[in-house]
Parts: sequence; C-alpha cells; structure tokens
Amino acid sequence: MPYFEMTNDIDIKDLGKKTSAYKAAEYIEQGMTVGLGSGSTVFHVIVRVGELVKEGLEIKCVSTSSSTSALAKECGIKLIELSETDSIDLTIDGADEIDPKLCGIKGGGGALLFEKIVALNSKKNIWIADSSKLVDTLGKFPLPVEVIPFGHRRVFRILEDKNLNPVIRKRDGSIYQTDSGNLIMDLNIGTISEPDKLDKDLKLINGVVETGIFCGIADMAIIAEGEAIEVIVRSQQ
Amino acid sequence: MPYFEMTNDIDIKDLGKKTSAYKAAEYIEQGMTVGLGSGSTVFHVIVRVGELVKEGLEIKCVSTSSSTSALAKECGIKLIELSETDSIDLTIDGADEIDPKLCGIKGGGGALLFEKIVALNSKKNIWIADSSKLVDTLGKFPLPVEVIPFGHRRVFRILEDKNLNPVIRKRDGSIYQTDSGNLIMDLNIGTISEPDKLDKDLKLINGVVETGIFCGIADMAIIAEGEAIEVIVRSQQ
Repeated sequence: MPYFEMTNDIDIKDLGKKTSAYKAAEYIEQGMTVGLGSGSTVFHVIVRVGELVKEGLEIKCVSTSSSTSALAKECGIKLIELSETDSIDLTIDGADEIDPKLCGIKGGGGALLFEKIVALNSKKNIWIADSSKLVDTLGKFPLPVEVIPFGHRRVFRILEDKNLNPVIRKRDGSIYQTDSGNLIMDLNIGTISEPDKLDKDLKLINGVVETGIFCGIADMAIIAEGEAIEVIVRSQQ
Repeated sequence: MPYFEMTNDIDIKDLGKKTSAYKAAEYIEQGMTVGLGSGSTVFHVIVRVGELVKEGLEIKCVSTSSSTSALAKECGIKLIELSETDSIDLTIDGADEIDPKLCGIKGGGGALLFEKIVALNSKKNIWIADSSKLVDTLGKFPLPVEVIPFGHRRVFRILEDKNLNPVIRKRDGSIYQTDSGNLIMDLNIGTISEPDKLDKDLKLINGVVETGIFCGIADMAIIAEGEAIEVIVRSQQ
C-alpha cells in the first residue's frame, strides 16, 4: 500500500476516521431520525451530514453532548430532544476501543452516559473508527465510569480495592464535570477479560451512574485504515 | 393501653415518630460524626440534637438533603460535607416501610440517593419509625426509583413491561426534581417478594441511578407505637 508510506501516523488515523465516517453516512436515509455520537470521528459525520442536508436530505437528529449539538447547529442540522421521539432509526458513534465481538470502551470524551442512552434508544447502531481502535482485548484504554460526586470517595476506595486503579478525571486542574454534573473515574485495568460482567459489577456499585463498557449495542463497526474499509457485523446470538 | 384510646391515629403516629427519634438520639456520643437522614421522623431527631448541642454535645453532622441542612442550621448544628470525612460514626434515618429483616423502602421524600450514600458511608445505621411503618412484606408503599431525565421514557417503558406500574412523581403540577437533578418514578408493586433481587435488577437498567430499596443497611430499627418502643436488631449473616 504505497499510500501509507507517504503519510504519517496522524494523517492515516485522521483519514481513517474520515473514511469510516463518510461510509457510515451512506446508511442515513431520507426522513430518518439519526443519533449523533460525540468525539473526533463523529466530527466528520456531522460535517458530512451537514453537506447532505444542504443537498436536500431531510432528517432529524438527536445529540449526545453539548459539543455535538454546537457543531450540528453550525452545520445546519435539525436537532430534536430525545424526549420528542419514541425511537431513533440509526445512531452513528465512535469508540475508544472495539473488540472483534463489537464490545467497546467509550467515554474518552466524557459523554458515555448520554451516548449509551441514545444508543439504547436506537434501532440500529453503527460505530466508526480508524483501525487503531480495533483491539483483541479491551482494557488498554482507560475505562471511564460516571460517578455521583456526593460520597464519591467511597466509590474510589471500592475501585481501588478491586485493583482497578481509578483516576479522577481532571480538566485544566479542576475535576471534570459531565453534562449531568457527575465526575468521571478512569480505570486503568490493562486487560478486561469479561467486559459484560465488569460492566454489571460496576453499575451495581451505589453512586455509579454508568460505565463506558458498551456490549451488545453496536450492530456494525466500520473500521478504516486510511481509505481501506473493514466492516464488522455483530453476530446475533 | 389506655393512653392510645384517648388519642387519634395522627397523634399516635406523631408521638411514635418523636419517641423513636428521641430514643435514637441517645446513641449519639460526644465527638461523633453523625449522619442525618430526611423526613418527618428525622425532623424530631434534628430538633433533639439541637437541644443536646445547646447542652454541650460537640458533634459534626452530614446532611442527606437540602431540607435537612436548612433545619439543622436553624437548630445550631454544625454541618460538614461528606467529602470532609472518611467515615460517619452513626446515621439516623427514617423509612417508609420496614420489614422484620430490616429491609426497607425509602425515598418517599425524594432523598433516597443521598440517604443511601450517607448510610453506606456509616459505621452504624439506626432507623426510626412509628409502628405503622413496620410491615410483613415490602411493596404496599410505592417504591421510588431515581432516573436520569435524558431518555427516561425508555426506562418508563421497561418498568411498565415488568408490570411495576411506574408513575413519574410530580410536585405542584411539574415533574419533581431530586437534589441531583434527576426524576423519580414511583413503582406501585403491591408485594415485593425478593427486595434484594429487585434492587439489583432495577439498578442495572441504564438510566437508573438508585432505588429506594435498602437491604443490609440498617443495623437497628427503633419502632415506637406512641411511647412504647420496640428495638429490632439485624442479624449479621
């Protein structure tokens, strides 16, 4: 592949993001209600959807974060509240890590709660990513967990006792706050052997609102290395 | 018991609340960090603690709700944030229903999340109640569940599908908002045969933050009918 030899890693990653985003946008049909995820890969989807809307595509979109809402508005995309629809036809979102069974880690950008809720309200979910996000086993990327601020030190101790190496996320020196006013603990685990079980164990801790483990949610992942696309479809068990 | 014949139900209930509250206050010791629950029974605890503080009791208290904080301040009680302490020595709280094993339903007043977090941060938990709260089986009192507003209609549908008869709590015609900005769904179940299992099942629903089922939390319940006190201690299994 001579193309890759001429480009550096960052360019290839960004091209992969854009390639997967544009491919995913092909699944959007006239009249759909579309969920828009968050993050740097979804950025390309929003820009592409903005182009399609200018060309006559009529859709309504549901946003998962304040940053996605802001960009979508700039691009002339019609946004509705999740409460205004009973079901989303298709949601396109990125992921921080994706394994071959389409379990993933999300929440590097901090929007995991709304992203998961939008995904669960969607008939179909497509994940998009550059190929660096595809891994054999989840866990190298820190797993974000959204936690109620009140009494969070107890949650932190529990996570420490489970050897999950929590770090409270900060931004500009202050504790990071989610769109719901909660904080994020990033778990440095290394290898997550049973993601579905870990997801449930964490969710059952009082004070934990949501985890960044997304299993059984994405129906399809569009992974791109530069301009080369690989589509992975989740087997329905 | 001639006393009860002379009083009406409301008086007996209120006397029971006050009796249990004053008895519980006897467990507070000099120098303790004390958790203060919420509601009409805890009201009497706060008033009593205020009296004891005026008499020289030096304690620090952690509040579970804005209403408890307001009353405690009026009564001259020193409040600290939960984040300022590693552990609470004793928490005194009410309950809407208590079964013989000291499983309970809480959250009629809407403070279930902070009440549960404070309880779990406490070395010892005492529940106080008038005798009308003691039941053989939980479930006649509607079970409150705290839910993220974003996408809450899906949670509502799931609860309906489980035949749990959810009702979104309102106050003055608007949707009730908890101290964390969430909403409450009251589940009209009738009989809860396995409270601990239901608690976990509900907590695992994405969007559910906390439930009003408190099992394995209270160490002791002080139940009063008028001035007659019954103390129930939870067996440690």
